[in-house]
Amino acid sequence: MSKKIAVTIGDPNSIGAEIAVKAINSGCIDDKKIILFANQEILNFYNLKLNKNIDFIDINFNIDSLSPGQNTISGGEFSYKTLVHILTNIGKYNLKSIVTAPVSKYALSLAGYNFSGQTEILQSFLGNKNKTANMLFVANDFRVFLLTRHLPLADVCKKIGKEFIISSVIELNSELKRIYKINNPKIALCGLNPHSGENGVIGCEESKIFIPAVDELVRSGIDITYPMPADALFKKAGKYYLSHCKQDFDCYIACYHDQGLCAIKPIAQEKCVNTTIGLDILRTSPSHGTAFDIAGRNIADETSMICALKSADI
Amino acid sequence: MSKKIAVTIGDPNSIGAEIAVKAINSGCIDDKKIILFANQEILNFYNLKLNKNIDFIDINFNIDSLSPGQNTISGGEFSYKTLVHILTNIGKYNLKSIVTAPVSKYALSLAGYNFSGQTEILQSFLGNKNKTANMLFVANDFRVFLLTRHLPLADVCKKIGKEFIISSVIELNSELKRIYKINNPKIALCGLNPHSGENGVIGCEESKIFIPAVDELVRSGIDITYPMPADALFKKAGKYYLSHCKQDFDCYIACYHDQGLCAIKPIAQEKCVNTTIGLDILRTSPSHGTAFDIAGRNIADETSMICALKSADI
Repeated sequence: MSKKIAVTIGDPNSIGAEIAVKAINSGCIDDKKIILFANQEILNFYNLKLNKNIDFIDINFNIDSLSPGQNTISGGEFSYKTLVHILTNIGKYNLKSIVTAPVSKYALSLAGYNFSGQTEILQSFLGNKNKTANMLFVANDFRVFLLTRHLPLADVCKKIGKEFIISSVIELNSELKRIYKINNPKIALCGLNPHSGENGVIGCEESKIFIPAVDELVRSGIDITYPMPADALFKKAGKYYLSHCKQDFDCYIACYHDQGLCAIKPIAQEKCVNTTIGLDILRTSPSHGTAFDIAGRNIADETSMICALKSADI
Repeated sequence: MSKKIAVTIGDPNSIGAEIAVKAINSGCIDDKKIILFANQEILNFYNLKLNKNIDFIDINFNIDSLSPGQNTISGGEFSYKTLVHILTNIGKYNLKSIVTAPVSKYALSLAGYNFSGQTEILQSFLGNKNKTANMLFVANDFRVFLLTRHLPLADVCKKIGKEFIISSVIELNSELKRIYKINNPKIALCGLNPHSGENGVIGCEESKIFIPAVDELVRSGIDITYPMPADALFKKAGKYYLSHCKQDFDCYIACYHDQGLCAIKPIAQEKCVNTTIGLDILRTSPSHGTAFDIAGRNIADETSMICALKSADI
């Protein structure tokens, strides 16, 4: 039996249920592959009808506590419970991937769960010292990997050492092969500093840390560039993306959050999918948040959720 | 008599002369407004013919030393001499702006001029303690100002203090009024950290430095936002740009080089113009480099030079 894709509705007070049902109804992937983890009363409340006959797992929820657009304890509780139910039953449901609708970090914390996001919940249930959840942003064949994630800018330089780059790239390289079936991934590495340090004139991390790390990676057979100016690299990637041409590289490594996300989000807009790699199961999610301001109004755009579903079907 | 626009051909061994002549010939701006600072023998060598009757100032050059695609002493000498001739004769030529074709920093250094670019040459001739050359990247009404420029990433956090933000924004605000005739500029400020610090969870500069600076700026009547997540801000700016809609803000302030340039360059491509503000004269230039690899082949794309010319005609 082929493996299934779990879909969640995220925070019940958000646009999550709406975009999940709209995306499933779009028929973007075979409905036989989907298991929706939701709650029938929530769907009824929002007047959402599935036009596909899909597997449905009902997660307990007290419908009287529903408050569209609000951060609530019960909202955080439901978000957490749904995801944990999936993570602890991957084998039982025969899952290959999870598509998560957005949750509210604040609602999670109200419910007593202090995670900075779903990635961290996944890490705490599926990660260990050999398996780390990493963030990859994907829009068609434009993929951006974040070397560091939710770190203050002042700590980024301290975090990135030679061994850290080497282990991160080895892990990324094997995930690109395993998940995306790319035989010999071509990887581009952004420099840390403007102009990638301009031969040491604007910072020395490229020559002291990045180049020795790449030397070792290249010796081990990984196809990775020496550090390159991020703006020039992403300008070219943007040109290919906007003109629907194949990318030069299978993946671009950004050294830190804004270097990568300020490049891919403006270009790819709703096509940008937040992907968690490095664990036993692939997880994708739309790159937007809960959109509490438009919850329950049936005007949410399901494009990013559709892209997340397609990205999870590999 | 209305003021003129100086145009240079940049490094004589680069694509500079080619894109300058092609852009002028395109008729993108009234030829009566242009003064071309070049050398007739260089234009003849590259077989470039002006089809407009424009003012022409001949800069001395030994044509025997021309080496397309090469960094040479004479190339650096010509680049420097041309720009300095303009900068020391702004009144004589009645100039309002300068459009510079690309130069090679390495050729400049071979000729004994240690500037990290033309912006720095402008600063050294026209700047003083009250006038600082600042970089603004412009594509139609999408404008990105860099709070810090060619600084190692590790030094960015140290550089950005409250007073520095305040004085930079006051200067930017007055330049947006003066140059672009925007009555009351609406300015968006990117946070320094991912998610603009997420209420102190990912760095404290936003609460300790940025918010107090904005408080003061708002009190002084400047229309500026509190620090916002850069990726979300630029995602929206990108949406407006790609759908040809008016931007929400007249200018976005990026805290550092790659935060701003990784956002605007992939979106705007050749439409992105590098602009020097803050001095007595406006300077614009294409956002690409010398392209030595295709010099003399008559295949260079003049789009960015045309955009630079149009941007200088204000």
